Amino acid sequence: MSGIFESKSLGTPIGFIIKNNDAKPKDYSHLKDSYRPSHADFTYEKKYGLRDHRGGGRSSARETACRVVAGTLAKQLLNLQGVTISAYVSQVGTVKLNKCHKDLDLSKIHSNLARCPDIEVAKQMVAEIEKIQEKGDTIGGEITSISVGVPAGWGEPVFDKLHAGLGKAMLSINAVKGFKFGFGGVDIASSKGSEVNDIFIDNKGATKSNFSGGIQGGISNGNDIYFSVAFKPVSTLMMSQKTVNKDGVRVEIEGKGRHDPCVLPRAVPIVEAMTALVLADHYLRSKTNKI
Amino acid sequence: MSGIFESKSLGTPIGFIIKNNDAKPKDYSHLKDSYRPSHADFTYEKKYGLRDHRGGGRSSARETACRVVAGTLAKQLLNLQGVTISAYVSQVGTVKLNKCHKDLDLSKIHSNLARCPDIEVAKQMVAEIEKIQEKGDTIGGEITSISVGVPAGWGEPVFDKLHAGLGKAMLSINAVKGFKFGFGGVDIASSKGSEVNDIFIDNKGATKSNFSGGIQGGISNGNDIYFSVAFKPVSTLMMSQKTVNKDGVRVEIEGKGRHDPCVLPRAVPIVEAMTALVLADHYLRSKTNKI
Amino acid sequence: MSGIFESKSLGTPIGFIIKNNDAKPKDYSHLKDSYRPSHADFTYEKKYGLRDHRGGGRSSARETACRVVAGTLAKQLLNLQGVTISAYVSQVGTVKLNKCHKDLDLSKIHSNLARCPDIEVAKQMVAEIEKIQEKGDTIGGEITSISVGVPAGWGEPVFDKLHAGLGKAMLSINAVKGFKFGFGGVDIASSKGSEVNDIFIDNKGATKSNFSGGIQGGISNGNDIYFSVAFKPVSTLMMSQKTVNKDGVRVEIEGKGRHDPCVLPRAVPIVEAMTALVLADHYLRSKTNKI
Amino acid sequence: MSGIFESKSLGTPIGFIIKNNDAKPKDYSHLKDSYRPSHADFTYEKKYGLRDHRGGGRSSARETACRVVAGTLAKQLLNLQGVTISAYVSQVGTVKLNKCHKDLDLSKIHSNLARCPDIEVAKQMVAEIEKIQEKGDTIGGEITSISVGVPAGWGEPVFDKLHAGLGKAMLSINAVKGFKFGFGGVDIASSKGSEVNDIFIDNKGATKSNFSGGIQGGISNGNDIYFSVAFKPVSTLMMSQKTVNKDGVRVEIEGKGRHDPCVLPRAVPIVEAMTALVLADHYLRSKTNKI
Repeated sequence: MSGIFESKSLGTPIGFIIKNNDAKPKDYSHLKDSYRPSHADFTYEKKYGLRDHRGGGRSSARETACRVVAGTLAKQLLNLQGVTISAYVSQVGTVKLNKCHKDLDLSKIHSNLARCPDIEVAKQMVAEIEKIQEKGDTIGGEITSISVGVPAGWGEPVFDKLHAGLGKAMLSINAVKGFKFGFGGVDIASSKGSEVNDIFIDNKGATKSNFSGGIQGGISNGNDIYFSVAFKPVSTLMMSQKTVNKDGVRVEIEGKGRHDPCVLPRAVPIVEAMTALVLADHYLRSKTNKI
Repeated sequence: MSGIFESKSLGTPIGFIIKNNDAKPKDYSHLKDSYRPSHADFTYEKKYGLRDHRGGGRSSARETACRVVAGTLAKQLLNLQGVTISAYVSQVGTVKLNKCHKDLDLSKIHSNLARCPDIEVAKQMVAEIEKIQEKGDTIGGEITSISVGVPAGWGEPVFDKLHAGLGKAMLSINAVKGFKFGFGGVDIASSKGSEVNDIFIDNKGATKSNFSGGIQGGISNGNDIYFSVAFKPVSTLMMSQKTVNKDGVRVEIEGKGRHDPCVLPRAVPIVEAMTALVLADHYLRSKTNKI
Repeated sequence: MSGIFESKSLGTPIGFIIKNNDAKPKDYSHLKDSYRPSHADFTYEKKYGLRDHRGGGRSSARETACRVVAGTLAKQLLNLQGVTISAYVSQVGTVKLNKCHKDLDLSKIHSNLARCPDIEVAKQMVAEIEKIQEKGDTIGGEITSISVGVPAGWGEPVFDKLHAGLGKAMLSINAVKGFKFGFGGVDIASSKGSEVNDIFIDNKGATKSNFSGGIQGGISNGNDIYFSVAFKPVSTLMMSQKTVNKDGVRVEIEGKGRHDPCVLPRAVPIVEAMTALVLADHYLRSKTNKI
Repeated sequence: MSGIFESKSLGTPIGFIIKNNDAKPKDYSHLKDSYRPSHADFTYEKKYGLRDHRGGGRSSARETACRVVAGTLAKQLLNLQGVTISAYVSQVGTVKLNKCHKDLDLSKIHSNLARCPDIEVAKQMVAEIEKIQEKGDTIGGEITSISVGVPAGWGEPVFDKLHAGLGKAMLSINAVKGFKFGFGGVDIASSKGSEVNDIFIDNKGATKSNFSGGIQGGISNGNDIYFSVAFKPVSTLMMSQKTVNKDGVRVEIEGKGRHDPCVLPRAVPIVEAMTALVLADHYLRSKTNKI
């Protein structure tokens, strides 16, 4: 709607509207006075004194559609700097992809419904999701994000460490409960310094291993930036759940409308977008590193 | 130095200086031209074009001393709101405390060197650290943070979710690589919605379980807020390590000076301080929730 | 478009679109390659490397329509706190309203085209504008803003002084070049302390005079807040002007389209809106003055 | 105290302490319970619920000493970009310097007590101040700030216009009540577009006149940036003044301690410092104008 003139950005805000032509607010009317377990119904009402029960309001992942648009623009900016960002589903329930991103063909991420670059594992993930869906239950999982080509020197040294910004961005995505930076498949807490230190092999930042995940002291070191993001199972179930209503009376509710049994595959573009937004911000900030 | 008059804060900045009477900058002179593996020496130099090699500059955890002072003030503010914050070491290497915080006597945290409220586990942690220290190696671990008494309604709904702010604050602490919010001992990714949803038992926010960790949709729900923070092993080892110097020549370095084999016990007050700072900010913001 | 549910704000962003059904972008096509004197054409192009020549882009006062909408919401918030805001044209060219706001009937502001509460002076202003318009020239002027009912204690003590925020907000309005806070019709620079000090007459902040304009040390004192804003004449003239084009060739341009000979009457709601936005921000900040 | 290593800034905060070896807090003890007219005593107490009566706390211009230090660093940065900043006293009471800065020898600013580059006018200013001081009264005045060498393209187009930032910075200085941008000695409100438009003479931004003061649409155009700042007379008088105390009882107070009859000459470095800080910020922001 604004900000673009003859295919170039003008420096003005880029405005857009995504119309939801398929909204079904009535699917939510049975929730008007009840609080869904582990959902934001209760906390929104406590914070603001009222809430819009239709569609979950901003606590719905619909809110992230705008992030994906913004992320696409950030990616264009980053691509000009030689940075490429990919994310993929690396775990659904107990089905786990136990491979380093360097051993995967990332071009296959979008070739399957699970958005997992390993076709065999992807099939198991889809089967897991279908099994859960039949029961009306939901399941969690993990997404891995990879950024290649970030030069050394992005990120701030104290509160605005690059991985702290990435962590906050990921934790701001609906249903995210955990963030793990670097360390590949290795357990952080039980590792030893002699095993996980990344030995420099030249003075341009190349290292033998990359347990650091491409960032040291909050600042990128030129190696691949990678991290994993843990999602809880969706809280809205298609089965009956006990809860209370506004008056404290115990009631049973059951999800109506369209709810995912597993958000992981749909969250891949959101993780990519938020990665891009944080990196783009730090790219711009890096322009004042040295005068 | 400023900000306090007749024992009360004036609204002016509270200034203080912590003098380090025991600094030994010469302990670092052998590192002037070499990059310690997995340390910020290289990235600082790339970002700023120069670095202060003495003591590691701001990449040293010395920097966190100020955070602890600020956190103490934030805690006073929070205590007036009925909020109390505790943190403790819940893992050192492979030694793990497998108990819910409700089953622990948090008054015992500072009774031992490991800052672990379970005396038996604390002993094992100390033994683990001593074993590692003898080898000149280092070890990682995990700290758990508990906040009791936070009322429902703190936190913002989109980017500034309460747990996103807490996650960023934790990831800004030196050596932190992972953040896990809520879910107790349960694995997030493989859990099912029917198992981990927190069923409301009244209309004041009380729930049967607390997998949510006291926050839903980014906003506190009145239950205990808890999370765990994973620390990598310290990168400075007291054993020989290969690396390169500024000119790209391969050299061997060995830590001199005073370096911890395990930062976990010393990081407990930092985790508490950063928790307090984030909660205090959100407490102040919550004052405009409703007009 | 969003943010309001059953006539109440939800805490979500309040979104709206103002469609310009009467845009005439072709009126600007003769300016594509020329820089209007004293206009932002040149500086925008230097800053961004390109510009949208149609309608002046963001350097058009059209941009302020959104501020007026936002200001209306801020006013609703302030009204609940007992604050009312009025602005009026106090000077057009050499026609000046030499009266204190207390001696004016502010309900008459919108009764005339000049938006001046003194009907006689308003007539002279309209005549002055018509005279200028006939010549294809433009004229400057002054707007006075009055806020009644602001309680003592709003504003911050150092950089974010209340009048500094108001000054910045006014100077962000197109064509504003001057800001004068308090002092009524008195010249600031040549006044003496013994003449302009506001003597307290009770311990609730009432003062004999109000040269301070309702703020002392950056913080409101409970008296009427007033200031005047000086506008330059519009730079787009309906007469021929010399300038250069992109290639440095000297050309003559003449305003086409719809340009005001005097923006003052139309700027009254903008001044009110920006006053309201600054006061509303400081009202919210004032909620953490004391804990 | 920090931030500088081997004569270069490290990217870390530059910390310093200015010890006041000549503080006389007892000079203020008679003001403990009374509110000085037109001073911040009353508003601070209303805002915070308590105040430090000694030395006026942060409402004293002592607070600006830190700004001058920071400004000196900002000037070093700007000098590297070819920018030089000067300020001088252009009015004291009724004594006015009626010359354009281009016709003045700015190297003479610091050659006299009045900090006015015109020696004759400076003498009159000093005489004016001495006359006022004898009476125990105070007097206002005006400072002019000149920045030469700012390239085209600094400043933001909407709320953070370059002159809006400068205006806010000036209005944040103690005793400042007015800000006028550009327009030389010409009255803004009564000027006509045909008289004050700056005609371009080349396509690099050179203009025949500079009524715009070097900024158009909030963005620098490459010409000299100039503005004037109006200061009210100091509110603390060395003569008796009526006021009230905390209990609302009418009392008389008289300034003790060391108070200036006219702050203008001492405010010159503060105006320079704040100009430098705003320009330095916008210089850094300008680094992302184009990618």
